[in-house]
Order: sequence, then C-alpha cells, then structure tokens
Amino acid sequence: MTTQAATRMATEMAEQPDACRRTLEALVPLRAEIVARYAGRRRVLFAARGSSDNAAIYGRYLLETHAGVSGALVSPSVATHYGARLDLSDALVVSVSQSGATEEIVATQDWARECGAATIAVANVADSPLVEGADLALVTQAGPEVAVPATKSYLAQLVAMAVLGTALAPDPDALDDDLARVAGEVERLLSADVAAAVDVLTSTSYAVVSGRGLMMGTALETALKLEETCLRPVRGYSYADFRHGPISVVADGTAAVLVSAADGPMVTPMTELARDLSARGAQLIGIGGDAAFADALDVALPGPDLPETLAPIGSIVTSQVLVERLAHALGLDPDNPRGLAKVTATEPPKEQ
Amino acid sequence: MTTQAATRMATEMAEQPDACRRTLEALVPLRAEIVARYAGRRRVLFAARGSSDNAAIYGRYLLETHAGVSGALVSPSVATHYGARLDLSDALVVSVSQSGATEEIVATQDWARECGAATIAVANVADSPLVEGADLALVTQAGPEVAVPATKSYLAQLVAMAVLGTALAPDPDALDDDLARVAGEVERLLSADVAAAVDVLTSTSYAVVSGRGLMMGTALETALKLEETCLRPVRGYSYADFRHGPISVVADGTAAVLVSAADGPMVTPMTELARDLSARGAQLIGIGGDAAFADALDVALPGPDLPETLAPIGSIVTSQVLVERLAHALGLDPDNPRGLAKVTATEPPKEQ
Repeated sequence: MTTQAATRMATEMAEQPDACRRTLEALVPLRAEIVARYAGRRRVLFAARGSSDNAAIYGRYLLETHAGVSGALVSPSVATHYGARLDLSDALVVSVSQSGATEEIVATQDWARECGAATIAVANVADSPLVEGADLALVTQAGPEVAVPATKSYLAQLVAMAVLGTALAPDPDALDDDLARVAGEVERLLSADVAAAVDVLTSTSYAVVSGRGLMMGTALETALKLEETCLRPVRGYSYADFRHGPISVVADGTAAVLVSAADGPMVTPMTELARDLSARGAQLIGIGGDAAFADALDVALPGPDLPETLAPIGSIVTSQVLVERLAHALGLDPDNPRGLAKVTATEPPKEQ
Repeated sequence: MTTQAATRMATEMAEQPDACRRTLEALVPLRAEIVARYAGRRRVLFAARGSSDNAAIYGRYLLETHAGVSGALVSPSVATHYGARLDLSDALVVSVSQSGATEEIVATQDWARECGAATIAVANVADSPLVEGADLALVTQAGPEVAVPATKSYLAQLVAMAVLGTALAPDPDALDDDLARVAGEVERLLSADVAAAVDVLTSTSYAVVSGRGLMMGTALETALKLEETCLRPVRGYSYADFRHGPISVVADGTAAVLVSAADGPMVTPMTELARDLSARGAQLIGIGGDAAFADALDVALPGPDLPETLAPIGSIVTSQVLVERLAHALGLDPDNPRGLAKVTATEPPKEQ
C-alpha cells in the first residue's frame, strides 16, 4: 500500500495476530483460577488509566452484558490522594497496566487488598510490581512494545478482558469458537484501505468519535490515539452523552468517526446517529456495522466478522491503521509523538 | 455589571441562594430515611446523564472520601439495550434527573428495582415518573427552570448529593455548619468579575477544562456548559487522564480552565498542572484554589470559602457566570442554544 519505510508502530501492529494467539493460549487455561478468585465476591472493579482504562471499559460491559456480573471503574485518587477506607471484601479488583509499572495503579491495587479485595493484575510485563503484588496475574503476551502508541499491548489487554468476561459467565466456553477466529480477523483488518478516511480527517478541523455499549471503549481508544498520535483535539463520546447535548457543536467542518459492531442492539441506534450527524453537516467515517450503517456513512471502513461480544478486539485494528496512516499524512512520526513517554506518570517528576 | 437585559439564565442563576436554602430545608430532615434505605446494602450506584451525571460524579466522590461508602456509575444501556440481569440486592441505586422524566433513567431505575436494588430518586419535579417509581425521593427545590442550560436545578442536585453523602457518613451532622454557609457563598460568587477570562476564551481557538477528585464533576460540568451554551468544542478531562497523554495537544492558542478547591489533597497537583500547561503555551484560567494556585494562572477567578467536600456547590456558580458572559461576548443567546431541548431524549424521536 505504501513505499514508506515501516514505522515501529506499523511493525508492532502487524505482530497482533500472533500476540492475540499467544495471549489466548496463556490465559484461557487460567479461567478456573479467575473463578476461584471471584468466589464469594459480588462485583468486579477495574483500576486503570489511559488506554488500559479503555480496555477496562470493554471488560466492564462484557462482564455485565455477557456474564451478568456487576462491574465498575475505581477512581484511583480515592486510594492515592484521599486514602479512603472502603470495605471491598465483596469485590474482585482487576488492575490493568501495560507496563505493570504505573505507580498510581500499583498503589491502587495495594490499597484494594488492604480494603479486603481479591486482586487480579493484567499486565504485559511478568516481572513488574503490578504482577508481583496481585493474587493472580493475567500476563498478556504482546512482547516488548517500543512505539509510544500502545497497539499490540492494548489488543492483548482486550483479549485478557475477553478471557475474564467469559471465565465468569455461566458457560465459560460459549465464545471459544469465535475467540479462535479473532486472530484471523485481526490479520485481515491490518490491510484495511483507509485512504478515503485519511482524506476526510486531513480536510476537517475537528473530529468527534462515538460508540456505545460494548464498543464504547473502542470509541474512546480511537479518540485517544487520534489525539495522542496525530496531535489533534479529538473528542470521544458515548453515544448517549453525545446526544444529551454536545451534539450541538457538530457542524460543517466536523469529522465524525463512529464505531459499531455488526450485530447486537447498538447497530440501529448508531445508524440513526450517523444520519443525524450527516444532517448537521458532519463528514461521517464508520468502522464496522451492518449494511444500513455503511449506507449512512461518507466513508465505510471494515470491521471484524465477530459477534458484538468480541468485536472490540478486531475493530481497534482498523482504528490503528487509520491513525498510523493519518500521522504520515500530517507529516508526523507515529512512533514518537511530542510530549509522551512510554511509562506514563500521572504525577509530574519530583523536583530535585 | 452590565446594561444588557437579564437573560433567563442569569435570572435563574440569581435564584440559586434561595434554591440552595430551600433544598437543604427539604432534604436534611430525610437523612434518617436515606440511612434506612441503605441499611443492609454495601454500595451506591448512580444512574444519570449529562449535567445530572456530573452531579452524580460529585456524589460518588463525596460518598467514597467522606462517608467511606463505595460508589459507582451505572451504564444505563446495560439496562435499556442489553437487558442484563445483575444481582443488585446489595446496592442502593440513586437515579438523578432534573425533570424526573428522562425515559432512559426512569427505565434504568425500574430495571434496578427488578434486580433487587433499593432506589432513591433525585429530581426537581415532584410529580414525575422518576419520583413516583422510587422507594424514596429527594425532591430538589430549585423551582421551575426555563432556560435550556441547567443552573439552579444542577446546583440543587449538588445539594442533594451533599445530603446523601453526609447522611451515610459516620457523623451525619459534621458538615452542617459549612452547609449553612453555602447559600451565602453562592450569593457572593454570583457577582464574580469574569471579564478577563471572557477575553481569554474569545481570543483562543480551543479550550480544555480539568479538575480532580471532588472537583472533577465541576470540571466536566464547566466543559459541558461551555460547549452547549457557547457552541465551542471544549474538552473536560480528569487531571490524571489529561496527564496520561492528551496533554500533548495543548499548545499556543489553547485556553485551559482549571477548577480547584481551596484545601484538600488536590490543590498542589492542580497548581503543578497549571505550571505545566503554562509552559506548553496555554492561557490559564483558574477557579478557586489557594494563593499558590492563583499565582500560577493568567486569570484567577474566585471560588467559595468552603471545605473541599462542599466546594463544588459554590465553584459551579463562577463557571455559570463565565459561561453566561461568554455567550454574550460571542453574540449567542445563552437561554436557547442551537439544537437543544429542555427534556433531553437519548433516543431520537420515533418516526411517524
């Protein structure tokens, strides 16, 4: 598709089918251990920041809609700054960090245990404080990641979320046939043709991204990556929050990126949102969805042939291809955008 | 301060000291009933959208940091679109809607009861489906609100959150002396001089808003109001999510609005954030904080003389004054921004 030298980001994206297979091989056998850690608990709380938080949002929806288990997101500052003492003896806390070294998340996991929670760490580095401090570790198998934008490590986190969500479901094996197809879908989407979408994004001044339910984490991650990698203000909205007011800022010159699964209860609402945004003058780019969704778009990008429960693991690949190509079109280096370090500190460096 | 005719928005903002007093009078006596509904439960879940969601975020932080009670936000689509069956017999679900008529929230409250939750409704309309369907209603006393931007009804919701958070605390009366001072602080902040901040916002192309912990809901509400009322893309970030990547889009031409309480563990981190954003070229507007925070700003706006636990009820008034004045400066009608209806439907109207 291009004569440019492959970026680190593109190289690492291409490793995702293998990362997906290796992570499934490593984590599916741990389902019984996940169940054991959850035994006697009534809810799952996720602790994460940034991309990992977007993976956790998928995990939370999957737990609630597929497994029937209550999920929620911890506010780390309640642990790290307010030192609140909560009774978490009924909770399993799942802490998610690619490096396993994000201090705030490590501290939140320690706090959760002190509050009585069982703890599971999801990290890509086995020899990390988050893994060492957890009752059980789900170590993703993405391999070392060098480019600043997390791609294969994020996808591997999504796989870990799918293992967690299926482990706690009444029938843990129910999605295994579909899980076995994920790596192939990831492979296929790596060659998505995004040129028309890049043209839309380079010719508009402001972009919004929206998705809903199981795809909301994908929308937020797409927005985050567009913003971090392409240095453009991009707003990610849940469908409902978007309709509940901010849709009023959409006008000519706005690009909207909508992500949808091919099935499930959100395809029709997302199609209606696409039509509404078009009527307001936005240029519509869509990822996934069904035929009616594609008809409502200016540019339709492919999504995975996977059920909604697993679609986020495939859809993000199309987003990554779009982000990587857009960075090139904007003359930016996707491997190392301004102002970002690989292990992100929430607090600024201590002064000497 | 101005010779322009008062807008509805300004008139309703001016009614807030009374709305605050009336709501406290009505709700403080209900603390024992709140405790009774929570008896035997272990967590509080909030169901809300838009401004009400921002009030709920304050409620959640107050519960966790002041009362030591676990809080979280429900994802309404899990109820309305996925029809998930969760065991909420250990939960108190607090549904928040100014009109009490937001269908999605009414449906979510009904679903929560079917899942075993105790239910409390927070609404400004006594004769509303949300109130009628709840085990206990906290009816705020803002009076009828006509302008599209919620001001006095939002502030009354914050008061309801403070009553809820103190009711479930070990010493429910501990903040009563401070609560009695809130209306006076609201009154004082109504005359905040925001002219210099309006100048910054009219001369910059992009704005971000940030706050943390107990002030995060205030930051998100300030961003939402700037966006809805002034039709400008504005991004509200939690402090931590902001530092975790998106800070890279801040550059010359960005306006940053930071909200801080005058005390508590977040003032120093917010001051450091202000310095960092200044170094990146942003124009800094701050609301509240302490003297060091003010020193780090280009424009310092007043916040309330209230402890962090109650500061959000005062700080939002300064934000409202800023939004109302900015709308005038942009030639917009703050009472009726384009594309917004007073009772917001998450779903589009049904086709005939």
